[in-house]
Amino acid sequence: MPLWKVYHPTGAFSAEDKQELAERITSIYAGVPIPKFYVVILFEEIDNGNCFVGGKAHNQFVRFKVDQIARTSPGPILREWWIRTLDAVVAPYVKDRGYDWEISIDETPFDVWSLQGELPPPFESVAEKRWVAENQASPYTLQEKLPVNLMLTPGVTDRS
Amino acid sequence: MPLWKVYHPTGAFSAEDKQELAERITSIYAGVPIPKFYVVILFEEIDNGNCFVGGKAHNQFVRFKVDQIARTSPGPILREWWIRTLDAVVAPYVKDRGYDWEISIDETPFDVWSLQGELPPPFESVAEKRWVAENQASPYTLQEKLPVNLMLTPGVTDRS
Amino acid sequence: MPLWKVYHPTGAFSAEDKQELAERITSIYAGVPIPKFYVVILFEEIDNGNCFVGGKAHNQFVRFKVDQIARTSPGPILREWWIRTLDAVVAPYVKDRGYDWEISIDETPFDVWSLQGELPPPFESVAEKRWVAENQASPYTLQEKLPVNLMLTPGVTDRS
Repeated sequence: MPLWKVYHPTGAFSAEDKQELAERITSIYAGVPIPKFYVVILFEEIDNGNCFVGGKAHNQFVRFKVDQIARTSPGPILREWWIRTLDAVVAPYVKDRGYDWEISIDETPFDVWSLQGELPPPFESVAEKRWVAENQASPYTLQEKLPVNLMLTPGVTDRS
Repeated sequence: MPLWKVYHPTGAFSAEDKQELAERITSIYAGVPIPKFYVVILFEEIDNGNCFVGGKAHNQFVRFKVDQIARTSPGPILREWWIRTLDAVVAPYVKDRGYDWEISIDETPFDVWSLQGELPPPFESVAEKRWVAENQASPYTLQEKLPVNLMLTPGVTDRS
Repeated sequence: MPLWKVYHPTGAFSAEDKQELAERITSIYAGVPIPKFYVVILFEEIDNGNCFVGGKAHNQFVRFKVDQIARTSPGPILREWWIRTLDAVVAPYVKDRGYDWEISIDETPFDVWSLQGELPPPFESVAEKRWVAENQASPYTLQEKLPVNLMLTPGVTDRS
């Protein structure tokens, strides 16, 4: 669900850095919880002279561009909390190393998205819980599209 | 209109693969119909160690990120049909070759988009049909902005 | 705020071209005005055979993909003016050199965006003006979140 593009100066991060940062980012989403395999992170090197900030070449800049699909953060408090949480997650790899950085999140449609040819099951459904547990996409039944916490209400009765 | 970014492992696709996949994708959109030249596809190689799925390096993963601009798919049936259609289009290049894959579509604003300095003509307008036929952007008149199927209704009359 | 991705044929632009184009783009946004350092431009080379337009390889194509975050353009007149303005800004680097080109803008959420760990201050606030002047992100107070043109209205009075 989230697709993270990490545009960073060539050589800024070692293989270990990438592994650790990917784990940190993934953990945050896994705690929601959403299936871990929803989290895709692509590191992309930007050679010197190809990144400009404020009209000037900036070769110590890391730009995180995030597409979130599986969940939206409703309301100003959760949204501020979320972006600050992500900032804390990346801080050791940017702030603490002297890089400038920026994070922006886009929220893209849930219903035109597929993994392994399967449409992701509904928010908090039985199938989603199974995908979390199995950590891979697989077919699911109509039954499994129901929410795990199914709240039914009484049928219509005579209220007179 | 659609901009397809195909993030794939370095070397995953040959020049012929790319050509064929580009043709398959383009055909789907051309059948809408929209002008063929609206379809832009960029292949981008991801070297080993730069793609992480679920917190683990994954070097056999293809991520399709699609921006659709010229059309939206209205309603759940069309939207499911569309994403499943795209899945079928790419399947021979991912599923059938043992790659894992994911597709997500974003829908971006129609009215802040231009090709060759021209704003794309309205949905199903005379000008759009001409662009389909000529397969290139060119200036158009106000007259050509009218829909090809122009439905006028009677003027206001005395209804009493 | 705006993130510009410039996908261009390998070698299409010299270091001076990139510098000048980055300055031209930045100036347009600085004139809004928004802080100059909001403008991030990434140049990305596309090797021959990796860009397809209308199903055919196209090695003379420049694709500008823009995410705007800090401001939206309200209404059809401003939106058309804006995209035409950007077209004029890039024309010397594409149209006048014989490249085909396309620009599309996405508008992404303001409230899940941060720079240097700071959430950008509100539209036309005292803090935003200070960020414009200082051209860098820094903490700001609640007081500075107020608009520079603060219009208060009378308290509720007896209207009878």
